[in-house]
Amino acid sequence: MTVQAKTIALVGKYNAAGIADSMTELANFLEQAGHHVVIEAETAQYPQLAQFATMTVPEIGKSADAAIVIGGDGTMLGIARQLAPYNVPLIGVNQGRLGFITDIALDRMVPAITDILDGKYASERRSLLQAIVVRDGDQIFSGVAFNDIVVSRGAGSGMVELRVEVDGHFMYNQRSDGLIVSTPTGSTAYALSAGGPLLHPSLSGIAMVPIAPHALSNRPIVLPDSSEIVIEIVAGRDISLNFDMQNFASLMHQDRIIVNRSAHTVTFLHPQGWNYYNTLREKLHWNEYPSVEGALN
Amino acid sequence: MTVQAKTIALVGKYNAAGIADSMTELANFLEQAGHHVVIEAETAQYPQLAQFATMTVPEIGKSADAAIVIGGDGTMLGIARQLAPYNVPLIGVNQGRLGFITDIALDRMVPAITDILDGKYASERRSLLQAIVVRDGDQIFSGVAFNDIVVSRGAGSGMVELRVEVDGHFMYNQRSDGLIVSTPTGSTAYALSAGGPLLHPSLSGIAMVPIAPHALSNRPIVLPDSSEIVIEIVAGRDISLNFDMQNFASLMHQDRIIVNRSAHTVTFLHPQGWNYYNTLREKLHWNEYPSVEGALN
Amino acid sequence: MTVQAKTIALVGKYNAAGIADSMTELANFLEQAGHHVVIEAETAQYPQLAQFATMTVPEIGKSADAAIVIGGDGTMLGIARQLAPYNVPLIGVNQGRLGFITDIALDRMVPAITDILDGKYASERRSLLQAIVVRDGDQIFSGVAFNDIVVSRGAGSGMVELRVEVDGHFMYNQRSDGLIVSTPTGSTAYALSAGGPLLHPSLSGIAMVPIAPHALSNRPIVLPDSSEIVIEIVAGRDISLNFDMQNFASLMHQDRIIVNRSAHTVTFLHPQGWNYYNTLREKLHWNEYPSVEGALN
Amino acid sequence: MTVQAKTIALVGKYNAAGIADSMTELANFLEQAGHHVVIEAETAQYPQLAQFATMTVPEIGKSADAAIVIGGDGTMLGIARQLAPYNVPLIGVNQGRLGFITDIALDRMVPAITDILDGKYASERRSLLQAIVVRDGDQIFSGVAFNDIVVSRGAGSGMVELRVEVDGHFMYNQRSDGLIVSTPTGSTAYALSAGGPLLHPSLSGIAMVPIAPHALSNRPIVLPDSSEIVIEIVAGRDISLNFDMQNFASLMHQDRIIVNRSAHTVTFLHPQGWNYYNTLREKLHWNEYPSVEGALN
Repeated sequence: MTVQAKTIALVGKYNAAGIADSMTELANFLEQAGHHVVIEAETAQYPQLAQFATMTVPEIGKSADAAIVIGGDGTMLGIARQLAPYNVPLIGVNQGRLGFITDIALDRMVPAITDILDGKYASERRSLLQAIVVRDGDQIFSGVAFNDIVVSRGAGSGMVELRVEVDGHFMYNQRSDGLIVSTPTGSTAYALSAGGPLLHPSLSGIAMVPIAPHALSNRPIVLPDSSEIVIEIVAGRDISLNFDMQNFASLMHQDRIIVNRSAHTVTFLHPQGWNYYNTLREKLHWNEYPSVEGALN
Repeated sequence: MTVQAKTIALVGKYNAAGIADSMTELANFLEQAGHHVVIEAETAQYPQLAQFATMTVPEIGKSADAAIVIGGDGTMLGIARQLAPYNVPLIGVNQGRLGFITDIALDRMVPAITDILDGKYASERRSLLQAIVVRDGDQIFSGVAFNDIVVSRGAGSGMVELRVEVDGHFMYNQRSDGLIVSTPTGSTAYALSAGGPLLHPSLSGIAMVPIAPHALSNRPIVLPDSSEIVIEIVAGRDISLNFDMQNFASLMHQDRIIVNRSAHTVTFLHPQGWNYYNTLREKLHWNEYPSVEGALN
Repeated sequence: MTVQAKTIALVGKYNAAGIADSMTELANFLEQAGHHVVIEAETAQYPQLAQFATMTVPEIGKSADAAIVIGGDGTMLGIARQLAPYNVPLIGVNQGRLGFITDIALDRMVPAITDILDGKYASERRSLLQAIVVRDGDQIFSGVAFNDIVVSRGAGSGMVELRVEVDGHFMYNQRSDGLIVSTPTGSTAYALSAGGPLLHPSLSGIAMVPIAPHALSNRPIVLPDSSEIVIEIVAGRDISLNFDMQNFASLMHQDRIIVNRSAHTVTFLHPQGWNYYNTLREKLHWNEYPSVEGALN
Repeated sequence: MTVQAKTIALVGKYNAAGIADSMTELANFLEQAGHHVVIEAETAQYPQLAQFATMTVPEIGKSADAAIVIGGDGTMLGIARQLAPYNVPLIGVNQGRLGFITDIALDRMVPAITDILDGKYASERRSLLQAIVVRDGDQIFSGVAFNDIVVSRGAGSGMVELRVEVDGHFMYNQRSDGLIVSTPTGSTAYALSAGGPLLHPSLSGIAMVPIAPHALSNRPIVLPDSSEIVIEIVAGRDISLNFDMQNFASLMHQDRIIVNRSAHTVTFLHPQGWNYYNTLREKLHWNEYPSVEGALN
């Protein structure tokens, strides 16, 4: 039926009402179109999906031609981090209000995905960050982030103090609630709430955004994504290191967090005609229409 | 020697180098000037101060004509909260760089305090906040703050969600790192770091400053200090309630925090000629001098 | 027909499609209800309104029991400034999307105004600011503002430099695009765009909000509304003084602008049940509903 | 004396006390070191400099091996724009407090420049922006900026409305005081005052920073420097287009401003050991030292 049968992995949000029905509908449609459908192993816990083949994430990474994620931006973040090493293109379907990175509405899912699998898509690459934690000379933790890597104080404690170096150059001692190191993708998430700038996804940049910094001049800064950022814990209590606010490690004084761009990237497939500014405008409620003449007072 | 002998309490920062020597010097000077000197009980742990009479904070509250605090703004915060019910005027001496509320330099301590005790001072009143926590209909915690009352997320968790009411009117559901409710005194502390405005100490106002709010329009708001603010915990993990970032309580979902202006105030005695704008200008490094003609580009 | 016939003035936006029809409808309704209707003189230029009696603003000020304004917040600002000395209560009907101070929708106009004139209303007082400009010892300009008094640089020039004093105390030399002095009413207008806080209308405060200040620590500050603010022009070109961004005066170096709370206030009549937080929440798109369980990531 | 005699141009700030003496000292020193010294034609108006040869800026561009600028960042901006097409490396000496791009102190001028001319330097490239204005299909203005290109409202007028497109994609209608399009170099200037992020000079990015935008979600955005930005004037009065706030053009409704990265770059020669973070830390008063143990509250 299609020129070329593909292996398509489906990934869904856990414990979400209606997800299994949407996934069953999509899986049936894709099989009828001649594709080979597999369900990601944890998603396959929905009983309705028991009829389909399952794969673990690494198996999907090795075998699938594309992965379709049904859920929200949080679901996409989680699977994108795991699939990053395998270079499987991702397609995002949103159950509710469209997300920044899940941009196909559920009720337009079938025609949109049909077009994309027929080669009618806009492809786009996103960068990731990786970090390791070094304690007493040993690497004790490592992780990858699609949005951001965040050093953060505990609830019942005052400020943290962080010593920041970039490319071997001392930058400053920062006293704050914490520090967000963000990809362009993450610039519309936590970093934006903390006062950071929007970064276009094709900018080769990393934003460092302090959270409630004690010094008013500790402003957000955008670095080239070739930069190596080293953050040393100088003072504070109950400090943690967060990856996309989904995975966490506890930190101690003198720990050094070394952040770099990841060697991997994530590829999104969007419907044709997609562009970033449309998404921004819709998500941030920017004005679409000029004001009526004379309304400017 | 003086027209009128006074009972003067001395309070010092704990575990701070040189504090005991400064306090001994001041205590001796005051006794020679005919005043009755007492040392706050915990401060009296410095061995050099064993020669002087001691009092607990409540005793100071009932007996002293004034309390002199030697340390920094943090030391003053702690004692001001405790002495607030007793209406004892406070004088602040700063060991290091002058603070917002400890505005007498150590090396000008003796003449400055002499003048103040002789009646040459500028007096100023500051308001406080109080909060209770209600769980399942019972009050489980109460506290007082001189700077701020802060609801705050834990280190390893995402946003909190708070439902805010003012004077019985629903305001909004706020998703953020937390919420700062600040006095004018606290407006130069954590609230300022989180993007809040400066509030003049004689403004009858309370600032509510969200920390890294998800919605960009959740801006700082200043309410009349007659307002009753009710904050309900809707979602989030490891949430705490902080008083001046010095005392803490753990919160659960559905807890309601009820914040009001305290019935008490704190009186500061400053050297004559003191004014708030000088302090702001010095602490915030505002321009004192006009720019040289022609230097404006 | 009503217990008490009242003199009601109608004021409408100029050159706005449909306004005259709405006003005619309202005027006819009010006359049938037994009230005496007058049209503000400039509004009366709409031919459809020729059948009604007209009054100038001062005549309205002296004779009317209430003034109903149909238009938007800008229209209300203009008439509120002019009527402030006369203490005539104001009712605001909005043609389009509801405003901060024009809070009755056109299609609910008749029942809402009926209720208000029957005494079912929430009344609320708003403060105003006044400023004079002193040049070489002479007062050369004076004006009143309902939102804000703004010192502003010209389009083709760099920063201004302003020397600011409050209550006779030197505050700072500020280099910026200009300075906004705002009432609580104005805190949702230009001051908000420039980074200022929201001020509750019943707060006795004035916000000073620098526009793009050169020094990052020149933050918005809220003063008691008893404060006298003196702004001296130190440097800059093409500088103007703006009242509600509707009236303007040109300024020169060494001009001193003296800003105080006006002796007058403006009274708004709102439909019963009105409260400020509902307006804020609607206008600023604050969250009304808690997020769905589990949606917080 | 040196391995290789060079042609060195000297450029100085106009009408600045002491500049001519410093330039004479430097010129004599460079001639004695065997270099050929020329004075930029306008700088040569200082009578003390009459003894030296002069060149116009284009002549300097064609002939000089390096240009030394004595003044402040504003002086450097002006000459850098003019010399950009010629690729002459620039060295900045600051009369007063060190600048972001004039980083040699006057009293260290001779040894620092000796080292640089001996090949001991850190070289660094900075990008520029160019813009043209199109009215009724014709290009009516063009210019280059080293810091920023700014669309700005007039002093006595309200907001402007701008329609913004990037790379042919509609972005938004923005209502504000204006819009700053900034290079990384300009990110520490006007853009920072307006709330923009710091951009590292080696980031290939352009920041778009709205000035006091009406919509709170119109946040600063950083685009790849390959972007073409088109700004159309929709509404507003007395609007101007500013290049580094030094050159200006008046704009009318429907004018289209087309902004691109310039084909030229500017090369700075810094003393060895220079790095960007040291400059930022010094200029922005960032903390150099960790706080004393226990001082964090």
